[in-house]
Amino acid sequence: MGELPIAPVGRIIKNAGAERVSADGSEALAALMEAYGTAMAKEAIKLTRHAGRKTVKAVDINMAHEILQ
Amino acid sequence: MGELPIAPVGRIIKNAGAERVSADGSEALAALMEAYGTAMAKEAIKLTRHAGRKTVKAVDINMAHEILQ
Repeated sequence: MGELPIAPVGRIIKNAGAERVSADGSEALAALMEAYGTAMAKEAIKLTRHAGRKTVKAVDINMAHEILQ
Repeated sequence: MGELPIAPVGRIIKNAGAERVSADGSEALAALMEAYGTAMAKEAIKLTRHAGRKTVKAVDINMAHEILQ
């Protein structure tokens, strides 16, 4: 955890229509986004191995999203 | 869209257990994470307004996650 920088996450909240965002708000969303990304990546890695590859590609990420949504 | 830097997203995929990650794989996950974050932020902003505030706080983000999960 803690890979995502906080400033871009604050901009995502502003872009969504927020007038102001607290630091703890940006940090909370960064943590949720990273947990979501990790869950999606774990599923994608299973699909990569299933396809006999070692490199995770966009097709694996997108199939993971179809499966997990 | 396009707020998240790609390198940290690649590290999230590596941290999840990937041997290798393609650039398009990292870009695909960054796009999904940003869409997820935007959806969560839009719900949080409604909750912020509902509470009579203008500043999005962690309590709003976390309640949005409870509602949308």
